Amino acid sequence: MSPEPVLDIAHLGHIELYSAVPEKSLSFFVDVLGMTVSGQKGDSVYLRGWDDYERYSLVLTGSETSGLGHAAFRCRSPQALERRVAALKGSGFEIGWTENEIGHGPAFRCRDPDGHVIEIYYETEWYQAPPELKPALKNQAQRYPARGVNVRRLDHFNGLAVDIRANRTFFETYLGGRTTEQIILDDGTEAGMWVTFTNKSYDFAYTRDHTNTPGRFHHVTYALDSREDILRAADIFLEAGVHIETGPHKHAVQQTFFLYVYEPGGNRVEVANAGARLVLAPDWKPIVWTEAERRKGQAWGLKTIESFHTHGTPPVEHR
Amino acid sequence: MSPEPVLDIAHLGHIELYSAVPEKSLSFFVDVLGMTVSGQKGDSVYLRGWDDYERYSLVLTGSETSGLGHAAFRCRSPQALERRVAALKGSGFEIGWTENEIGHGPAFRCRDPDGHVIEIYYETEWYQAPPELKPALKNQAQRYPARGVNVRRLDHFNGLAVDIRANRTFFETYLGGRTTEQIILDDGTEAGMWVTFTNKSYDFAYTRDHTNTPGRFHHVTYALDSREDILRAADIFLEAGVHIETGPHKHAVQQTFFLYVYEPGGNRVEVANAGARLVLAPDWKPIVWTEAERRKGQAWGLKTIESFHTHGTPPVEHR
Amino acid sequence: MSPEPVLDIAHLGHIELYSAVPEKSLSFFVDVLGMTVSGQKGDSVYLRGWDDYERYSLVLTGSETSGLGHAAFRCRSPQALERRVAALKGSGFEIGWTENEIGHGPAFRCRDPDGHVIEIYYETEWYQAPPELKPALKNQAQRYPARGVNVRRLDHFNGLAVDIRANRTFFETYLGGRTTEQIILDDGTEAGMWVTFTNKSYDFAYTRDHTNTPGRFHHVTYALDSREDILRAADIFLEAGVHIETGPHKHAVQQTFFLYVYEPGGNRVEVANAGARLVLAPDWKPIVWTEAERRKGQAWGLKTIESFHTHGTPPVEHR
Amino acid sequence: MSPEPVLDIAHLGHIELYSAVPEKSLSFFVDVLGMTVSGQKGDSVYLRGWDDYERYSLVLTGSETSGLGHAAFRCRSPQALERRVAALKGSGFEIGWTENEIGHGPAFRCRDPDGHVIEIYYETEWYQAPPELKPALKNQAQRYPARGVNVRRLDHFNGLAVDIRANRTFFETYLGGRTTEQIILDDGTEAGMWVTFTNKSYDFAYTRDHTNTPGRFHHVTYALDSREDILRAADIFLEAGVHIETGPHKHAVQQTFFLYVYEPGGNRVEVANAGARLVLAPDWKPIVWTEAERRKGQAWGLKTIESFHTHGTPPVEHR
Repeated sequence: MSPEPVLDIAHLGHIELYSAVPEKSLSFFVDVLGMTVSGQKGDSVYLRGWDDYERYSLVLTGSETSGLGHAAFRCRSPQALERRVAALKGSGFEIGWTENEIGHGPAFRCRDPDGHVIEIYYETEWYQAPPELKPALKNQAQRYPARGVNVRRLDHFNGLAVDIRANRTFFETYLGGRTTEQIILDDGTEAGMWVTFTNKSYDFAYTRDHTNTPGRFHHVTYALDSREDILRAADIFLEAGVHIETGPHKHAVQQTFFLYVYEPGGNRVEVANAGARLVLAPDWKPIVWTEAERRKGQAWGLKTIESFHTHGTPPVEHR
Repeated sequence: MSPEPVLDIAHLGHIELYSAVPEKSLSFFVDVLGMTVSGQKGDSVYLRGWDDYERYSLVLTGSETSGLGHAAFRCRSPQALERRVAALKGSGFEIGWTENEIGHGPAFRCRDPDGHVIEIYYETEWYQAPPELKPALKNQAQRYPARGVNVRRLDHFNGLAVDIRANRTFFETYLGGRTTEQIILDDGTEAGMWVTFTNKSYDFAYTRDHTNTPGRFHHVTYALDSREDILRAADIFLEAGVHIETGPHKHAVQQTFFLYVYEPGGNRVEVANAGARLVLAPDWKPIVWTEAERRKGQAWGLKTIESFHTHGTPPVEHR
Repeated sequence: MSPEPVLDIAHLGHIELYSAVPEKSLSFFVDVLGMTVSGQKGDSVYLRGWDDYERYSLVLTGSETSGLGHAAFRCRSPQALERRVAALKGSGFEIGWTENEIGHGPAFRCRDPDGHVIEIYYETEWYQAPPELKPALKNQAQRYPARGVNVRRLDHFNGLAVDIRANRTFFETYLGGRTTEQIILDDGTEAGMWVTFTNKSYDFAYTRDHTNTPGRFHHVTYALDSREDILRAADIFLEAGVHIETGPHKHAVQQTFFLYVYEPGGNRVEVANAGARLVLAPDWKPIVWTEAERRKGQAWGLKTIESFHTHGTPPVEHR
Repeated sequence: MSPEPVLDIAHLGHIELYSAVPEKSLSFFVDVLGMTVSGQKGDSVYLRGWDDYERYSLVLTGSETSGLGHAAFRCRSPQALERRVAALKGSGFEIGWTENEIGHGPAFRCRDPDGHVIEIYYETEWYQAPPELKPALKNQAQRYPARGVNVRRLDHFNGLAVDIRANRTFFETYLGGRTTEQIILDDGTEAGMWVTFTNKSYDFAYTRDHTNTPGRFHHVTYALDSREDILRAADIFLEAGVHIETGPHKHAVQQTFFLYVYEPGGNRVEVANAGARLVLAPDWKPIVWTEAERRKGQAWGLKTIESFHTHGTPPVEHR
C-alpha cells in the first residue's frame, strides 16, 4: 500500500495584491467587481466576495509597484497546521511566524522556490455581515450585492515561476498539494502546473515566466456561478472601460470558462466558472498536455493572445 | 485541541435503484436523462453520466418493487477503508464483505439505523470510453452526449428515515460525515440532515419518513452545469411526458436549484445545480432550520408540494 | 382576397402607473429594477430601461391609489396616426388630443370598452444619454447599469376587463391589433386575450376581472435577456425584501418565462423573457386555450396562485 | 410628411444551400444541428428548426459545388405580393414566376444586383407535426428535439456582394427593406449592410466580396434561445469534430452573440442569439460603423479571423 496522502491544507484563504494606484484599484474591486470592504489597516484594504465565509479573501496594499504580496492557505485543524510547520521548519523555505494580521490567527510564512511568500494558518474570523448586508437565506455569508460583476468567492491564483518542477515538488512535498493537470514540453521541461487541496480541480497554478524573473504573478481569479455570468461580466467591463485581455472562452486545460482583464494597478484579474466540474477521485492522475496539444489553442480554437505569455506583475524592471 | 476529523470517505460512488419496469426505467435514464450504459449483469444494468470518472454511478436492477438497493461510498485509500471497516465491525450495523461486483474491488456493507444498505470500497475501475464516446478534451471522462437532459454526474441521494438523529449519529460516527444543514422541529425532533464528505455542500441527505416505515428512499440527484440546464430539462421532461412533481425552483436549504420528476419505476429523480456553491470551511457549523423558517416554503416562496412529504419508494405497502 | 391587415401601430410606447407611495415606488424601480430617471414634471417621474429607445417607457405618478394612468402606443408614421384618429373619432371611445406631454408629440386619447385610457402618438423624443450613461457600443441606447435587476425594456402590460370580447374587438377594429392567443371558457365566454402589433407574440393582454370592476390593472412587464436573468432577479428581489407572488416558471400561454412581484405601491410587476420566440407569420391564427387545458396549470405544472386571479390595482374599493 | 414605408415583406422564409457532399451535409444539419427532415424531392431535402412555423426553412440541394441556391421571403398578403411583383416587373432584375415548389404557392423570382436569386411568395404550408413530433404545448410548431444543438428557427442569411450600395438600394427600393446598420469605409464605399423586414434587427445582410466575385454566399444563421445555448453548441461542435471558425463572442455590429462553423459542404453556418434585442422603432436610423470603429474588433475585443473575410461559397474558382 502506498503511504496515505497528506490532507492538512483545507483551501486557499486569501491573497495580497500590491497596487501603485490603490484608490483606483479599490474602485475597480468594489464598483466593477462588486466586492465588499471588510477591513482597513495601514496601507491595506481588506475585501471579500459575497460568498467568502472568512472575513476577507483579498488584501489590497498600496505599494510602489504591482504583484503578489502573499498567498495564504487555511489548514484543516490546529494539528494540521502544526504538522505543516514542522515539515517546513529547517527546509530552507521557512520565513517564520507572523501574528496580528486582521482576520486570522498566527500564520507561518515561507517562500516557494520561486520566491513567492506563502502563508498557512488555521484560526480564522468568520464574516459577520452588518445588518444592511445580512442575506435573506441564513446559509449564505452575505447579501448578494446586485452591483457590477458580483463576484462570488476567491477561486484560485496563478503565479509565474522560472522552474515549475521545483515549485510543484515544493507544494506537493510540504503542503500536500495534488497536481491535477500539467504542461510538459517536448524536452521534458515542465511549463505549467495546476494543483488542488479541495474538490475544485485547482486552487492555484504556476506557469513559466518566460522572462526568467522570479517571484512574479500572473492572475487572481474570482468565481461566478454560470457561464452567462461571465458573459455579462464582459458586457460590464466593456461599459466600465476596463481592459479586456482575452475571453470569454473555454480553456482546454481544466475546461474553465474564462475572462481576463487588468485592474488599474496592472494586475491581471480573471472571472471564471468551472460549472459543476469537480475532481472527486482521491487518486486522480495528472492530465499531461503536450506542446502539440497546447498549440491547438483553447477549447473551441481561440489562439492564446501574446500578452498572456508576457504580461506579469510586477513588470520585470521593477523586480 | 479537539480531535481531528475523520477524512476516510472520498465521495458518493454509486447507488442501486430497484424498478419493477426495468425496461421503461432504462429508457428513461438513457433516452431522457442522456445516460450511457456501461455494463450489464444478471438483472442489473450499469449506467453513468458523462463526467462520472468511475465506470458507473447507477445500478438499475429489475425487482418486484421500487426503492434503493444500496448506496456506495468510495474511501480515500486502502488504509482509510481498513479503518472504516474496523470501526464498523462489531458495531451491530455491519453486514460484511461483498466481492465480484462489476467495476470496483471488495466492498464492506452495513445497514444504517433505518435499514438502508450502505457500502464502502476503495479499488475502482476508471471508465475507459470506447472510440465513439472518446471526448475531444482529454481531461473529460466521456463525450458530451447531446441527447436529452445530458446529466453530468451523480450528485447525491436522499433517503427517508424514521429516526433522523440515529441516522445522523451513525454517519458522523462511523463514516466521518460532516453535517452541513439540519431541520430541527420545535420539540427538538430532527426532521432532516444534509451530510458531506467533500466540498460539495452535501453528498447525501435523510428526511423524516412520515409513514414511520423504515428503509425507504426519497430521491437520487444528478448534477447539471447551470440553472439554464435545469430549465431546459423541464422543457424536455414536458415533451417526453415525464411526470414533473415540482420545480424548477431554488431550495432554501442548501440553495440547490431543483427539479423533481418520477422515473417510470416510481422512484423520484432530481436534476439539480448548486452553482459555484461549495463548503470550503473544514469546521463548518451546521445551519439549523426551524419549523417557522421551513414554513416559508422554498427560497423564492414556492410552497412544498404535498407529495414531496408523502411519496417515497418502495410504496409503504411493499415494505 | 381578404382585406389587408391594418399595420398602423408600431409598438407599445409607455404606460403610466399610479402610486400612493411614489417615493418608495421610485426607489423600487431605480434601485431594485435598475431603471433610470429621465424626466420629472409635476407629480410624475419618467423612467426607462437601458434599451428603451424613446426617452421613457414608464411614468410613475403620485396619486391617491394605485393602477394604470394610461397606456400609449406609437404609430408607424404621421399618416398612420391620422388614420387611427379618423377611425376613433365618432366611435364613442374617443377622449381627444392631448399635448405638452414630456417626450412625445400630440397624442390622441380614447377609452377602451373597459374604461382604460389608451393613447396613440407618432412624434417622439429619442433618448440622448448624458456622458456618464453613454454606452460603449453605439447601437445601444444607454449604458448597461449593472445595478439590481437591470431591466432591458418595456415589454407589455396586462389589463383586467369585465368583458374581454368587447375589449378584443375594440383593439382589433380601431388599432389593428392581432390576437395571438386566447382563453375561451366552456360556455363561450372569453377569459383572456393576448394581442400584438409587432413580431413579439404580444404587446398587451387583458384577462377577466372576476370582481366585475372596470378599468383595473393586472401588471406591467419589463424584458430581460435570458431565463438566467429572471432567476437572478428572483435572488435580488428576495434579498431586497420585495414580495414575490409567483415564479419563476414558464407560462403555458405564450411560453413566457415569468416572475411576478408587487412594487411598494401595490401594482404587480413582471420580469419576463420570451427567448427567441417571435411571431413572424403575418396570418397567425389565434391559439385558443380551453378551461380544461388551463386547469393543468403552467407549462411545467405550477398551479396558478389564487392572488393572481384576485389582486388587481387599484383595489376594488378604490375604484 | 414623408411617404409611408413599404411593409409588404413579412419575413425571411427559407434559403436553399448547395452541397457537393449532400449526405454528409444532411447528417450535419440533422444529427449535429438537430433539424428535422420535412420533405424530399429530386436532389433536394427540406429541413426545419423546431420553431419554424412553415414546413421548412432550409432546402439542401446536391450540386457540383457549394453556395446559395436562392433566398425566399414571405409577403404579408396576396396584395402585398402583387405589389412587389408589379414593382419588379420591368426592373431588369426579374426572372419570373416559379410554381410547384414544395411547401408554398406561386413565387416570383428575381436577381439582386450581385446575382443572388431572391424569391417572394405568399401562400405557404403550415407545418403539421406527425404524432411522434407533436409538442406538449399547442402554441409550438414541433416538439423540442433534445438532440445536438437544437436550433430553433432560421434567423438570417449573409450574402457577399461586390457592390454593397447597389444591393442595398435594390432591397430598399423593390422590397421595402429597412437598413438598420452599415459599414462605410473612409472613402465612402459601403462595406456591409444589415437589413430587416421585421422587429428583428436584421433578416439578412451583405458584406463585401473582397475577391470581386459576384453571387457568393457568406453564411446562414439559425437562432438559439440563449447565450448559454451558443456556448453549449460550441461544446457539441467540438465533440462532433465540426470545424469552428470563430466564436463564441459578441458582435459589435448588431450585438449578436455568434458562433461560426463550416458544414461538410463548405458553407459557413452560424448559430446566434440576439437576446431580447429588437428594433421596435418604425423610423430607426441606420447605425453607421467607420473603418476605425471596426478595427477595434468584436464587442469584447476579439480580432476578426482572416478567413472570415476570405472564405465564401462557392469557392471563387467554381463561380
